[in-house]
Amino acid sequence: MDMDVEMERSIFERELALRPGFLIRRLHQIHVALFAEECAGFDVTPVQFSIMSVIAYRPGMDQSQISEEVGVDRATLANVVARLEAAGYLKRVTSRLDRRQKLLNLTQRGKTLLNRMQEPVWRAHTRTIEALEPESQTVFMDLLGQLVDAGNDFGRAKLRLR
Amino acid sequence: MDMDVEMERSIFERELALRPGFLIRRLHQIHVALFAEECAGFDVTPVQFSIMSVIAYRPGMDQSQISEEVGVDRATLANVVARLEAAGYLKRVTSRLDRRQKLLNLTQRGKTLLNRMQEPVWRAHTRTIEALEPESQTVFMDLLGQLVDAGNDFGRAKLRLR
Repeated sequence: MDMDVEMERSIFERELALRPGFLIRRLHQIHVALFAEECAGFDVTPVQFSIMSVIAYRPGMDQSQISEEVGVDRATLANVVARLEAAGYLKRVTSRLDRRQKLLNLTQRGKTLLNRMQEPVWRAHTRTIEALEPESQTVFMDLLGQLVDAGNDFGRAKLRLR
Repeated sequence: MDMDVEMERSIFERELALRPGFLIRRLHQIHVALFAEECAGFDVTPVQFSIMSVIAYRPGMDQSQISEEVGVDRATLANVVARLEAAGYLKRVTSRLDRRQKLLNLTQRGKTLLNRMQEPVWRAHTRTIEALEPESQTVFMDLLGQLVDAGNDFGRAKLRLR
């Protein structure tokens, strides 16, 4: 590559590197790739895993509440839930109190999957920030948490962190 | 909401808040929402805008190089390029040197759009991190840049930042 192209490229890269949203999208891609690497063979995406984690914490939760907890819009959630149900990981039951509500529970198969994935998922999260020194990891997570908390109203679905 | 459910909820939130990938996904969603708010009426996504920016910086670039610059896989890129071409924002020309290469250029319509979007796009990026004090914004961007740079090989497509 000749000098001019190299210089032009680095100007461009500095430009994109100044845009927070661009870097955040890249880091998210990196995390998704690490998740895929660590969880190869499970065929579960990060969002699917988050949804199953929420159901494990709060069995019998209504589907519409979960979109708020995980920060996924309702249309996406409905798709993911249908896929997880088809795979035998969860069951939808109509609420006896309100027939419009669909309550979600993990099946035994879903619980087993979630347990087996805990370790690799944790590694994927750890590796996403492990390039930083431990103290910098703490700073980064603190600032990231502040931003998510402050920007909550602008996400697809609300999520309270604090 | 009774006390027990409230406590259970906050335990769950602390758990998710400890996962870097979860928070990064949330902040990305927030940025996309801010971008949509600031750029309402333009009907252009952040990724479409990044691709058009790259073409503006380096007109006549081959389509396959762009996926690397922007960090988008080739299938997604091909879809986005087709949509931008249909909207009249860019033109694909077959390279005279290598007929397999498709070179991309913005149309006048595309250049005008890009110029009109500079201000609102910049506001969307600024607002994504404005909840932090100025010094903390600098720290956050520096740490974020380090992570993207270090994790580069794990993204969908490589991007050198430094």
